[in-house]
Amino acid sequence: MSGHAIHGIIGYTITPFGTDDGLDLNALARSIDRLIDDGVHAIAPLGSTGEGAYLNEDEWQQVAKSSVDQVDKRVPTIVSVSDLTTAGTVRRARSAEALGADAVMVLPVSYWKLQTDEIVGHYRAVGDAIGIPIMLYNNPGTSGIDMSVDLIMRIVDAVDNVTMVKESTGDIQRMHQLYLRSQGKLPFYNGSNPMALEAFVAGATGWCTAAPNLIPALNRQLYEAVRDGRLAEAQSLFYRQLPLLDFILKGGLPTTIKAGLGLTGLSVGAPRLPVLPLDDAGRDYLGGLLKELR
Amino acid sequence: MSGHAIHGIIGYTITPFGTDDGLDLNALARSIDRLIDDGVHAIAPLGSTGEGAYLNEDEWQQVAKSSVDQVDKRVPTIVSVSDLTTAGTVRRARSAEALGADAVMVLPVSYWKLQTDEIVGHYRAVGDAIGIPIMLYNNPGTSGIDMSVDLIMRIVDAVDNVTMVKESTGDIQRMHQLYLRSQGKLPFYNGSNPMALEAFVAGATGWCTAAPNLIPALNRQLYEAVRDGRLAEAQSLFYRQLPLLDFILKGGLPTTIKAGLGLTGLSVGAPRLPVLPLDDAGRDYLGGLLKELR
Amino acid sequence: MSGHAIHGIIGYTITPFGTDDGLDLNALARSIDRLIDDGVHAIAPLGSTGEGAYLNEDEWQQVAKSSVDQVDKRVPTIVSVSDLTTAGTVRRARSAEALGADAVMVLPVSYWKLQTDEIVGHYRAVGDAIGIPIMLYNNPGTSGIDMSVDLIMRIVDAVDNVTMVKESTGDIQRMHQLYLRSQGKLPFYNGSNPMALEAFVAGATGWCTAAPNLIPALNRQLYEAVRDGRLAEAQSLFYRQLPLLDFILKGGLPTTIKAGLGLTGLSVGAPRLPVLPLDDAGRDYLGGLLKELR
Amino acid sequence: MSGHAIHGIIGYTITPFGTDDGLDLNALARSIDRLIDDGVHAIAPLGSTGEGAYLNEDEWQQVAKSSVDQVDKRVPTIVSVSDLTTAGTVRRARSAEALGADAVMVLPVSYWKLQTDEIVGHYRAVGDAIGIPIMLYNNPGTSGIDMSVDLIMRIVDAVDNVTMVKESTGDIQRMHQLYLRSQGKLPFYNGSNPMALEAFVAGATGWCTAAPNLIPALNRQLYEAVRDGRLAEAQSLFYRQLPLLDFILKGGLPTTIKAGLGLTGLSVGAPRLPVLPLDDAGRDYLGGLLKELR
Repeated sequence: MSGHAIHGIIGYTITPFGTDDGLDLNALARSIDRLIDDGVHAIAPLGSTGEGAYLNEDEWQQVAKSSVDQVDKRVPTIVSVSDLTTAGTVRRARSAEALGADAVMVLPVSYWKLQTDEIVGHYRAVGDAIGIPIMLYNNPGTSGIDMSVDLIMRIVDAVDNVTMVKESTGDIQRMHQLYLRSQGKLPFYNGSNPMALEAFVAGATGWCTAAPNLIPALNRQLYEAVRDGRLAEAQSLFYRQLPLLDFILKGGLPTTIKAGLGLTGLSVGAPRLPVLPLDDAGRDYLGGLLKELR
Repeated sequence: MSGHAIHGIIGYTITPFGTDDGLDLNALARSIDRLIDDGVHAIAPLGSTGEGAYLNEDEWQQVAKSSVDQVDKRVPTIVSVSDLTTAGTVRRARSAEALGADAVMVLPVSYWKLQTDEIVGHYRAVGDAIGIPIMLYNNPGTSGIDMSVDLIMRIVDAVDNVTMVKESTGDIQRMHQLYLRSQGKLPFYNGSNPMALEAFVAGATGWCTAAPNLIPALNRQLYEAVRDGRLAEAQSLFYRQLPLLDFILKGGLPTTIKAGLGLTGLSVGAPRLPVLPLDDAGRDYLGGLLKELR
Repeated sequence: MSGHAIHGIIGYTITPFGTDDGLDLNALARSIDRLIDDGVHAIAPLGSTGEGAYLNEDEWQQVAKSSVDQVDKRVPTIVSVSDLTTAGTVRRARSAEALGADAVMVLPVSYWKLQTDEIVGHYRAVGDAIGIPIMLYNNPGTSGIDMSVDLIMRIVDAVDNVTMVKESTGDIQRMHQLYLRSQGKLPFYNGSNPMALEAFVAGATGWCTAAPNLIPALNRQLYEAVRDGRLAEAQSLFYRQLPLLDFILKGGLPTTIKAGLGLTGLSVGAPRLPVLPLDDAGRDYLGGLLKELR
Repeated sequence: MSGHAIHGIIGYTITPFGTDDGLDLNALARSIDRLIDDGVHAIAPLGSTGEGAYLNEDEWQQVAKSSVDQVDKRVPTIVSVSDLTTAGTVRRARSAEALGADAVMVLPVSYWKLQTDEIVGHYRAVGDAIGIPIMLYNNPGTSGIDMSVDLIMRIVDAVDNVTMVKESTGDIQRMHQLYLRSQGKLPFYNGSNPMALEAFVAGATGWCTAAPNLIPALNRQLYEAVRDGRLAEAQSLFYRQLPLLDFILKGGLPTTIKAGLGLTGLSVGAPRLPVLPLDDAGRDYLGGLLKELR
C-alpha cells in the first residue's frame, strides 16, 4: 500500500490508561474498532493525541504492536515514531515497519532548537533505515520547531520516502505554498482541526484528526462534500462541527477526547500527569455539544 | 443603497502623483473608469493602497471628491476616512457623506496603543456623526491595533451603523468566529489577498482588493466560481492568480500596483517617500506575471 | 553645542490642551520651567509623550517655537520631527533648526512597512537638509518599525549627523550590541523607563524620559549614583521608583503624565481622543505613588 | 546546606560521550574537577547543557550518581530532574536526594501546553516527595512553557521547598518583578548568559552558566566586581566576555561548550544527534575567542 493511498479522514487514537496509570490495551482495541466501523480511512496511533511522548519505551512498543494488530490491514496504519534523539526515532521507525505499519509519521522534537542541517540529517537517517513511506509532520506548537515550506521541500527532495506532509501551523498559506511549489503533486494533510474546510478546499489529501473519536459522521461528510464539489453543504457541515473542533484544540486533545469517549460510553482513563483530566465545566459543555451533534 | 448591497469585488484605487509629487486627478479618473469597466462591484478610494495616510488634508479632500464624482453612482463608493485622531476621523467621515459616498471605512490607527474603551468610543463618535454605513476595518499589520472578534462584536452591537467588517489579519479563524457569533448574519469582507479562496468559502460577502487594477477578470471569476459552487474551477482560478496576490502583498500595495499600472499603460507615478517605487528586478518579475495572466 | 554634550536626564514634555482641545502654551511654558528647575539635563518636546503625532502642522510649529524659546538655551533642546512622509520630516527638521533646536529626534513611522533602503534614504534626506545632530530613535511599539543593530550601524555610518541613538525596544541586548559594535564610542540613550538601571550600567549616555515631570529627584539621583559608581544606592533608588516607571509605561505616557501633573498642581488637560484621560482607579493609584515618592 | 547558601557562579556540566555514543564518566569527573578547581561556587549536572533530556533512564542515573560522588560536597550540587511526566520527575528527584544532592532543579517541559493548575500540581508533587530545596526553572525557549511572575510567586507560596528561581527568558523585567514582589527576599538566579551584568546588578543571587567550562576566571571576576560594588570594572569585564557568551548561547550550549572543552584539552565527544557538533568555521571563531580571553 503506497503512501499515496492514504487519504480522507485519518483517525488519531488515544492511549487508554487504567486506574493504576498502566496501559489498557483492551480499551485501545475497542477505540480502534469504533473508528474503523465509523468509517475513518486510516488509523494513526501514538501521535500527539496518543500521548506518545509520555510513554516509556516498553509502553510505546506495546501500543504500537497492539494498534497495528488490531487494525489488521482493514485500513492503512500510520505510526508516529518521533523521539528527541535520532537514534530513538530510527529505532521506533524500524519497529513500526517490522510490526506491519503502512507508514510512519516523524515530528522533529526540540529541546535544543535544531538548525536546518540537523533536521535534514534527522529525516535522512530515518529514511535510510526503513522502506515504508514517511509523513513529515510540522507542528511548532507542540514540538518547538517550525519547518518553513523551503525546508520541507528540501527534505522532500533529499529523502526519497518522505512522500507526505502533515501541516499543523494553522496557517493556510503554508498549504498554498506546498501546492504551488510541487505543482499540486505533493500530498499534504491538515493537522489543524478548525481549518478543516479551507484545507480540503486548498487541496489537502487528508485530515489528520482525533475528532472522529467523537463525531465521525460529520468529519467524513465534510470530506465527501468538498470532494464531490458540494460547497454550500460543506460550509454548513463545517460550521456545525466547528465549536467542537475549537473546543478539543483549545482544551488539549488527550484531555478532551478522553473525556468525550467517556461520555459516549468508552472509558479510557485520564491523561498522564502533569496533564489533568477535563474539569466539570468542560465536561458539561462537551456533553452538550455531543448531544447536539451525534 | 444599503451597506448590505456591497458585495463581490471591491476595487481599491491608488492615488496617482505627477512628477512634482502633486496629485494627478486625471490619472485617478482613468484608473476608476478602468476598474468599473472591468467589472468591480464597488470602488474604495483613500485606503491603504490609496496612500490615504500620506496625504495632507487638502489632498485628501480633493481625492475624496474626485473619486465619488468619477464613480458617479455606477457602483457603490466606500471612502476610507481613518485618521489618528477621533476629531479628524469624524471630520473626514462627514465630508465623505456630504460628497455622496455610500459608506465609509474606519481603521483605528495607533501611535499610542488603544484600550478597548478607546476604540469603542472612536467608532461611536464616527457612528453618531454620520448617517451612512461604516465598514469596520481590522488590520494590525498597518495600524498597530488588533481588534479581537470579541471587541468587533461589541462595537457592532454598540454602534448601529457599523454594519460591515473588513478583516485583514490573514487568520481565517477570525472569519469563522465572525460567522459563528453572528449566525452568519454579519457581512464580513476579506482584506488579505492570498486568502481570497478560503475567505469566500468561509462566507465572506466580498473581497477588498487592489488586484483588479491588474487582473480584474481573474478576481471576478474567482468570486463567481465560489458563488456558483464551482469548487474545482475556483481552486484552479485561485492558484493561477496566487503568485501575483503574494507578490503585491509582500512588495507593498502602492509600490507594486503603481508599477503594474505603469506596465499596463496607465502612468500613475511613484509612491510617496519614504516608500520607494518598485525596483527593476521586481518590475521584471511583475511584468512576467502580468503577461502570463492578462 | 554638540550632540555629545547631551547626557543624563532628557526630560520629555507633554503638550497641554485647554478645555476647547486647543493648545495651552502657557501651561507648556510652566511645565518646561519646572523640568529645568528640577535639574533635567535636556528638554525634548513633541515626542511620544508630547503627542506630536496628534497635532496638525500649525500646532506642531507653535509647540516647537514655544518650547525652544522657553528653554532659552538653559539646557539643550531636542525636537522630535518625525512625520509619516520624508518630505514632512525634512520640513519639520528645517523648522526645528531654524528655531534654534540643538538636535532633532527622528523616528521612522510606518503605515506601509519600510524596507531597509527606504529607512536609510529617509535618514539621509533629513541629514542632508540640516546642520544639527540627529538622534535616531528606535521604538517598534509605537512606530511599527524595528531597526536592527545592523541597520542602525549602517545609518550611523552613512549619515554624518546621525550621532546619537535612542533605543526603546526594552531589550538590553540591543544596547550591548551598540556598545560592542562601536567600541563604546556611539552615544546611546535609553527610552524604556523600567530599564533605567541596567541601561546606565550598560553604558547609556542618557535616559530619555517623561518621568521627571513627576519624580525628577529620583530620576537624577539614579543617574548620578551609577555615574559615581555607587551601585548599592543605584539599585535601591531604582527599585524605589520602578512601580511608577512601570505604571506610566503601561498606562500610556500622555495619559499618566498629564494626570500626574494635574495631581501635582499643574493643570494640562487631557490627551487627544481617541486616547482617554486616566480613570479614577488609576488616578488614585498614581496619587498614592506620588505621595510616597515625592 | 540550605538553598540560600547557593550563590555566585553555578557551573553547568556537559555529559561526555565516547566514540560509541556511550557515557564517558571519566571525562565527566575531570570536567567537574576543573570547574571546582577554577572556583565555581556550585555544580549543576544534567541541565540543558548536560543533555539531560537526551539520556535514557539508566544513563541519567549513572550521570547523577557520578556527578554527586565526584563533587563530594566540595561545593553544593544541584541536580536537574526534569522529565515530561510528573511521575518521572518525582522519581528522579527522589534519586537525586538519595544520592546526596543539595538541591534539585525542575523545569516543566511541555508537549501539550500546560495550564497553570497543571504546573502548580507538578511542583507540588515534587515538593511533597523530597526534603531538599527545589530551584524552579523558567525557560520557555527550551521547554515551550513560559511561567509568568504571577505563577512563579503562586508556586513559591504553595510549595514550601521551592526556595529559588532560575530565570532564563532573557527579560530583565522578570527579575525586577521577582525582586519587587518578594521585597528582595526570594533568591533568583540568571540563566541567560548575555544578561549576566544586569542580572547581578538587579540583585540576582547567582549565575547559572556553562561558561566556566571555558572562561571561569572572567565569570567569577564579574560576579565579584558587582558584589564588591566595582561598577566600572564589572562593565569592562562583562563586555570583554560578552562575545563568547553570545556565541555559546546562539550556537547551542552542548555544541559549543563541548567544542570549547576539546580546544582546551579535554575531549568530551559530540552532542547526541540530531544535534550536530560545531562546524569548522565555528571552531575557528571559538578558538580565537578563547586564545584572547584565557
